[in-house]
Amino acid sequence: MLEIGCGQGDCTTVLASLVGDSGHIDAIDPAPLDYGSPWTLGQAQAHISASEVGDRISFHQATPLAFLQHVPEGKYDLAVLVHSSWYFASPSELREMFKALRGKARGLCLAEYALSTSHDAGIPHILAALTRASLELHNPSSTANIRNAFSPSVLNCMAAEVGWNIVSERVVVPGEALEDGGWEVGSIVAEGFLEEIERLVGDERTKLGLEGMREAVVKAVEGLSVGEKVRTMNVWVARFE
Amino acid sequence: MLEIGCGQGDCTTVLASLVGDSGHIDAIDPAPLDYGSPWTLGQAQAHISASEVGDRISFHQATPLAFLQHVPEGKYDLAVLVHSSWYFASPSELREMFKALRGKARGLCLAEYALSTSHDAGIPHILAALTRASLELHNPSSTANIRNAFSPSVLNCMAAEVGWNIVSERVVVPGEALEDGGWEVGSIVAEGFLEEIERLVGDERTKLGLEGMREAVVKAVEGLSVGEKVRTMNVWVARFE
Repeated sequence: MLEIGCGQGDCTTVLASLVGDSGHIDAIDPAPLDYGSPWTLGQAQAHISASEVGDRISFHQATPLAFLQHVPEGKYDLAVLVHSSWYFASPSELREMFKALRGKARGLCLAEYALSTSHDAGIPHILAALTRASLELHNPSSTANIRNAFSPSVLNCMAAEVGWNIVSERVVVPGEALEDGGWEVGSIVAEGFLEEIERLVGDERTKLGLEGMREAVVKAVEGLSVGEKVRTMNVWVARFE
Repeated sequence: MLEIGCGQGDCTTVLASLVGDSGHIDAIDPAPLDYGSPWTLGQAQAHISASEVGDRISFHQATPLAFLQHVPEGKYDLAVLVHSSWYFASPSELREMFKALRGKARGLCLAEYALSTSHDAGIPHILAALTRASLELHNPSSTANIRNAFSPSVLNCMAAEVGWNIVSERVVVPGEALEDGGWEVGSIVAEGFLEEIERLVGDERTKLGLEGMREAVVKAVEGLSVGEKVRTMNVWVARFE
């Protein structure tokens, strides 16, 4: 199995069920090992390596496309992208990767934010994601978590364009404890976001439009019930063959 | 009094209270008289002209800036912009108008959508407004209802930049019967919006980003309770001197 974007959470139980008794995972992430919070990518990898599945997972610090160049045809049962599509710099780069996976993996699994929520407290996260993505359009050297907020339909179309057909999909509602929504919202509500707009955007209409998007996030947070925390939006998971 | 953007609803009672026994209103709207739904601008004006305040309101089909060129200093007690700021083609054009009003009116009143809502069913309207405004950035000859989604803070800053100081503000929650939210959402959910994106936007990241924003609107509508209608978002009203 090939896992792309592999630093998220405690997944040893999931990995154990995926890898079975004799499987192997190549896990690719281009991020430096000190990336991530509250645990860094390096800490997460060390945690997994020390677990019962540790000897059946190999970590590679590489961009997926570069890594795939040296992968023989038919090597993998499954390629899995877990919350990694939004990090890709451009649609063409992601499409290239979907294409490069054809023939090298028999199946493709995607998990990405759905731009929908089953809880009102998830609305600020949706607005924040769209606001961040709208700003990052003006940031050619973006290192943000969200460089493009590809929606489920967009991802489905991009995969289909290079021959991946969707065979199943569903929406997962994250638990209250998942803090990603709160972090993303925090980065937009922060005064620093206004400075980012100022620094990255020249056109005045675009600039004021982004300030308006930020204000919608601020108001959505203010509109939460007293003591209510921002929730993380739903996640779309899909399998392609 | 000077009213800019004057075709909305049955406002004769409001007008009567504003105009008093001896006041006069100059009402400016650049739109053609067949503009508007379910009543056209021309029908709304005829309705007002036939009312008890009809002889104390003059309608002018003009752009506000052109009209203001011929207005002497100190002519008006109050200039009122009712849901008209989002129609302005650019921030500089709106700022010019705020500036041109200085000295010609002693007070300035604004009413514009607040980008906030007191009802969950108003969320699709907020998302739709931000989506429409994001598309119209790429439409230099836009005739959309929303050409820029200026937020309350942005409008406040723009007014302050040319010397208007806010003296009071509040947020009004529109009744269920106001259909504007539903119309705006309808125009985004419609397949035609995808064609608009295709026609107006060249850059692929921007294009797919807008498709994602549209999908957030679609999902927000799908997320409403069974039989629940989209509500119109809150309105911000502010007075400046």
